[in-house]
Amino acid sequence: MASDEFDIISRFFNSGEIAFPIPELGLGIGDDCALLRPAPGMQLAMSMDILQEGVHFIPDADPYLLGKRTLLVNLSDLAAMGARPLCFTLGLCLPAADENWLGEFSKGLAQVAREHNCPLIGGDLSASSPVHGSKTLCVQVHGELPVGSGLRRSGARVGDLVFVTGSLGDAAAGLQVLSNLGKESLSVEHRGALIDAFFVPESRIEAGLLLRDLATSCIDLSDGLASDLGHILRASAVGASIDLDTLPLSVALRAAHSDAQQRHLAISGGDDYELCFTLSPENEQAMRTGLGTIGVPVTRIGVITQGTQLQWRELGEPIALEASGYKHFRASAENLIQEAG
Amino acid sequence: MASDEFDIISRFFNSGEIAFPIPELGLGIGDDCALLRPAPGMQLAMSMDILQEGVHFIPDADPYLLGKRTLLVNLSDLAAMGARPLCFTLGLCLPAADENWLGEFSKGLAQVAREHNCPLIGGDLSASSPVHGSKTLCVQVHGELPVGSGLRRSGARVGDLVFVTGSLGDAAAGLQVLSNLGKESLSVEHRGALIDAFFVPESRIEAGLLLRDLATSCIDLSDGLASDLGHILRASAVGASIDLDTLPLSVALRAAHSDAQQRHLAISGGDDYELCFTLSPENEQAMRTGLGTIGVPVTRIGVITQGTQLQWRELGEPIALEASGYKHFRASAENLIQEAG
Repeated sequence: MASDEFDIISRFFNSGEIAFPIPELGLGIGDDCALLRPAPGMQLAMSMDILQEGVHFIPDADPYLLGKRTLLVNLSDLAAMGARPLCFTLGLCLPAADENWLGEFSKGLAQVAREHNCPLIGGDLSASSPVHGSKTLCVQVHGELPVGSGLRRSGARVGDLVFVTGSLGDAAAGLQVLSNLGKESLSVEHRGALIDAFFVPESRIEAGLLLRDLATSCIDLSDGLASDLGHILRASAVGASIDLDTLPLSVALRAAHSDAQQRHLAISGGDDYELCFTLSPENEQAMRTGLGTIGVPVTRIGVITQGTQLQWRELGEPIALEASGYKHFRASAENLIQEAG
Repeated sequence: MASDEFDIISRFFNSGEIAFPIPELGLGIGDDCALLRPAPGMQLAMSMDILQEGVHFIPDADPYLLGKRTLLVNLSDLAAMGARPLCFTLGLCLPAADENWLGEFSKGLAQVAREHNCPLIGGDLSASSPVHGSKTLCVQVHGELPVGSGLRRSGARVGDLVFVTGSLGDAAAGLQVLSNLGKESLSVEHRGALIDAFFVPESRIEAGLLLRDLATSCIDLSDGLASDLGHILRASAVGASIDLDTLPLSVALRAAHSDAQQRHLAISGGDDYELCFTLSPENEQAMRTGLGTIGVPVTRIGVITQGTQLQWRELGEPIALEASGYKHFRASAENLIQEAG
């Protein structure tokens, strides 16, 4: 029986399934620090996400799917930088040592860790406060890329084309399904597709590696297209014109929502973890060929413009649109999970 | 006014005070990843701690002191590995955007970051669950040390001497003072010294760098001497004989507690963040000279023995002692802060 933090770490986390060796790792779980040696000429890319029950995931979320999602959403930040995953650390605050939860959660983490050859190398485990007994997860992923390379938000130039991978709005629609916000008429297949989009976003690591030498800027869509593309525009000091008619919408999303709601979820919903990137028109064909080879769908949605405005267009005409992403500490109708919770 | 996460990061965290540049940093706060380039021949040491209100710190703890402590307790893991601090990341879940709290907390962090030339390079900020509205902090520190070096827990050998820096038990006694568990008769000076020991543990970074080439094993005392020395013994497959009469106890601790309670806090109290290390007798003088030069008190408390037992001695005679450190997920009289909270 798992009786304290050391037992739990040993049983569920310091196993060959999830804490397997990689050549860059000098020392893994079990000492005061992990030791990591990037290969000569390589630099590390690092990103941290903190996820809390009731904010970033639904209470009583399936622990296996939650484990997969926890690592996948972090790997998405490496994809957006064009980095190859190396390893990750995990901080866990849990209200109780629930062995079923721990087993399923670590199995989900291990699945993604194996798929990306990205082992767990350390972290911290703690009982959460007896007063505020929710789960909090903190993951930091570490990737590598050559010194001097890296896809930043700041490189978009006027005339660059704007693209997104995959389809938009599915994860937010999946969250609504999970939260039982209507949609009883939806088919089992479509419900499953939307829920999967929330829990198991497609990994865009290979796409990021390919885009590293082609794109001028890139971001992963965690807060929604409007918000995240806005980060590229601010960092690059440019504007954009986006054709709403071109936004890639899945069959499941179309089945689940009205036209207006599809659009709302696609631009403000968040949690898709697709890549939004810009590149010079001369690189479009090379990019399409490359992404086609690895089976990643890509859609051109607009163009980078002078100024600082994000201009939405419909049938070629500019339209005004209230669109914003999820913002912590700001009450908002877009903050879907808080509505749902 | 700070109105959302991006404003808060910009105002309180992405400032020259705390997010200042270092040569190893390729890219800091504001993109999908931070980029870090260790110098040639160097490896990274990394350690993560997750801290929750009501478990690791008292609700309504002074935010300036909490900021200092949050970074100091993480730097202690670098000290125990013999690594030089490089930079840190921070994950924050907060119930509200309290500007006074944010300002004081980031000021405390910045103070320690500056002292150790260890800037903030990224992280994540989130509103905590409206249902479970406590603060959760997650810090990962990154240090560097030459490839092939590093103080591990596993190197202690039979005949090595056991040492600790500083004094033991003060932080746990400080936590009791903070929790108003008696001690009304204690002088202001002694109360202050104990509270400081909890909130602002001495940095042992310089000591760790010096010990890197002298000690055979090292750990920082976060859970208490009994528990943490136990990690060295298990990792090294050795035992130890510890002389209770030699444990370094401060004037403030002696003033605050009975002999039995002093001893209890010194071996089971935790949170001291002093270093416990072993070395060959032939290196004792070099170590004492080195630590003396940088003003770090050190005390020899015992010797590494054959077997796997941690044997306590008093006036030279073995005695039986119930001693354990803080263990999450295990109810225990040693779990002081939960008693207090």
